Amino acid sequence: MHKQSAALLRLTHTFTYRISRQIRTRLVVVALFTGTPASLLHAAEWEISSRNLPSPAGASSELNASIAASPRPNIASRQYYPKTVEEWNAVIAQRAAARTKPLAEVEEQFGVTIAADEIAGVGVFRIQPNNIQPAHEKHLFLYLHGGAYVYNGGIASVGEAAVIASRAGIPAISIDYRMPPADPFPAAVDDLVSVYQETLKIHNPAEIAIGGTAAGGGLALAGVHQFKTLELPVPGAIYAGTPWADLTKTGDTLFTNEGIDRVLVTYDGSLEAAALLYANGHDMKDPRLSPVYGDFSGFPATFLITGTRDLFLSDTARTHRKLRSAGAIADLHVYEGMSHADYAFELASPESKDIYAELAGFLEQHLR
Amino acid sequence: MHKQSAALLRLTHTFTYRISRQIRTRLVVVALFTGTPASLLHAAEWEISSRNLPSPAGASSELNASIAASPRPNIASRQYYPKTVEEWNAVIAQRAAARTKPLAEVEEQFGVTIAADEIAGVGVFRIQPNNIQPAHEKHLFLYLHGGAYVYNGGIASVGEAAVIASRAGIPAISIDYRMPPADPFPAAVDDLVSVYQETLKIHNPAEIAIGGTAAGGGLALAGVHQFKTLELPVPGAIYAGTPWADLTKTGDTLFTNEGIDRVLVTYDGSLEAAALLYANGHDMKDPRLSPVYGDFSGFPATFLITGTRDLFLSDTARTHRKLRSAGAIADLHVYEGMSHADYAFELASPESKDIYAELAGFLEQHLR
Repeated sequence: MHKQSAALLRLTHTFTYRISRQIRTRLVVVALFTGTPASLLHAAEWEISSRNLPSPAGASSELNASIAASPRPNIASRQYYPKTVEEWNAVIAQRAAARTKPLAEVEEQFGVTIAADEIAGVGVFRIQPNNIQPAHEKHLFLYLHGGAYVYNGGIASVGEAAVIASRAGIPAISIDYRMPPADPFPAAVDDLVSVYQETLKIHNPAEIAIGGTAAGGGLALAGVHQFKTLELPVPGAIYAGTPWADLTKTGDTLFTNEGIDRVLVTYDGSLEAAALLYANGHDMKDPRLSPVYGDFSGFPATFLITGTRDLFLSDTARTHRKLRSAGAIADLHVYEGMSHADYAFELASPESKDIYAELAGFLEQHLR
Repeated sequence: MHKQSAALLRLTHTFTYRISRQIRTRLVVVALFTGTPASLLHAAEWEISSRNLPSPAGASSELNASIAASPRPNIASRQYYPKTVEEWNAVIAQRAAARTKPLAEVEEQFGVTIAADEIAGVGVFRIQPNNIQPAHEKHLFLYLHGGAYVYNGGIASVGEAAVIASRAGIPAISIDYRMPPADPFPAAVDDLVSVYQETLKIHNPAEIAIGGTAAGGGLALAGVHQFKTLELPVPGAIYAGTPWADLTKTGDTLFTNEGIDRVLVTYDGSLEAAALLYANGHDMKDPRLSPVYGDFSGFPATFLITGTRDLFLSDTARTHRKLRSAGAIADLHVYEGMSHADYAFELASPESKDIYAELAGFLEQHLR
């Protein structure tokens, strides 16, 4: 009965959302009376007027300078998305060309050594920091890059892994998991599982952290759901940086922060297209695709990051609540004026430094 | 030098904000070159277009039903504010009349016993739960009510204190602190200090929690700053529910969530008027007025609550960051689709139940 009500509610929401998008009614109320007050369901849609948004004065001057140098987030510019495999591959190649920094430069910048390798047939990059923390000598950070499950493969996947390895003084392996269009879901999850299983032959699970930003954070959470299904032990800690924990258009801040988040800007268009390409027809609420819908019992200590302008603030906060309700240790940090993953780009900002220092402390506290 | 830059940045922000409000420019860039890259300061203002905001599908059906029953937040309706002492007193009396629930009803509803009393000349309500947790027999929750430092005095101040006493099984004292127009700042802080000092004659500081929602959360934080100044020991724990930690118009979500938060709606108008009435000409960035600007070193474990639609999401998150940077234990929880203090009104919602259960666990963990 309760499950049915929830399903009806979801249907109702989808229905009223679509209707109201078309006919622009301000308020649609659908009441399904099924016997209890809680099931007297409603759906409201409010028209929110335009407003002027000043710089976030409470954020650092560095972040403010970066925001001032950004153009106003342009929703229309995100409406384009590739329509064919050829178009996808062209856009992916174009982005990869723009982001390819020689590994030697990354090594120099962060004080790490990087080696390309394969684990269980999956491409990886092994990242060894020059300054390993004594506490982390036996530990390992399994890193999963972001990029909407479509972008940032290859050597671009090393970026944030090198930052974390360097700032926390922990050896890292960045997994260059397979992606669409050639290899949609569940290839990425399968690759993570393969590498994790090999890693378990060398490490105790409590020595392993797993995580990343955006799709990487989502994939880490999805992977742990899958580990549980496969009866593998869970790792010692998770890093979920503004995780794409829900591939559907559900989170409240997808709406409240639309046109405010300067990185993602909007769910409609390119982001939704990436979700559909990756999901490849699977149920988007499968916890291996949208981990927020999974059962979080038995999850390890999880570190979550988001910002007040983040389109994925809701995904991050909802995941935090699910973890807490399941009894997990889960630390949520929200940064003033930050859009999605700003910290991974603005490495010199105090916010970014603070995040990686917090993460370093978290890993030191929770890995065994 | 750094201090001067910060002061200049603030001035610049204020200036560009005022200018842009008047002439409606979309982007104002002010660069003050003072010799270092970080001091190349900018201020951006973006025009954010109107949007349709659906119900927060990821929130509970109870919260959704309550939101659907709310009118769309109306910014214009908050532009009125009292202009004279007589008008203030009339509005305060009107609100008090609307909110006065007999204490016997509160006692019955929450399973508590309530007694009016005085401590050090300050009016208080002693709230004894029927179900005291064994761990809390020697503990005390010093409660500070919300209401923008103007409203909810008298027996209205008992509401959330009774909820906390009941849900956590802890004895509570709700402080009916003095308020403007008769008694502006620092009367409320002084009353808190007086009651706290008396309480310290009976309790170890580690046995005392202090906190509240909105102005109550802000006052708790402000009070602890003042305890430190007076070299009083800090309490064992703080509850800062969507605290009004900054009385100035600074927080990012005052802008991003304007017209979205169904409780506060907007800073402009009645809320700002209350801030000015309370501050009574004092510097609004005095940490006893806007505690986010204080030094948080030595603060006790602090529990912070906010929501994705909360006008004070930024105040809450910024306070959390200041606490973390000072090395304090600080747990932040963000609830999907929640406006400012929704949980204190929607007591039957799963979100509200979860918040008070989290708070109960926090108090059990941190009080000694």
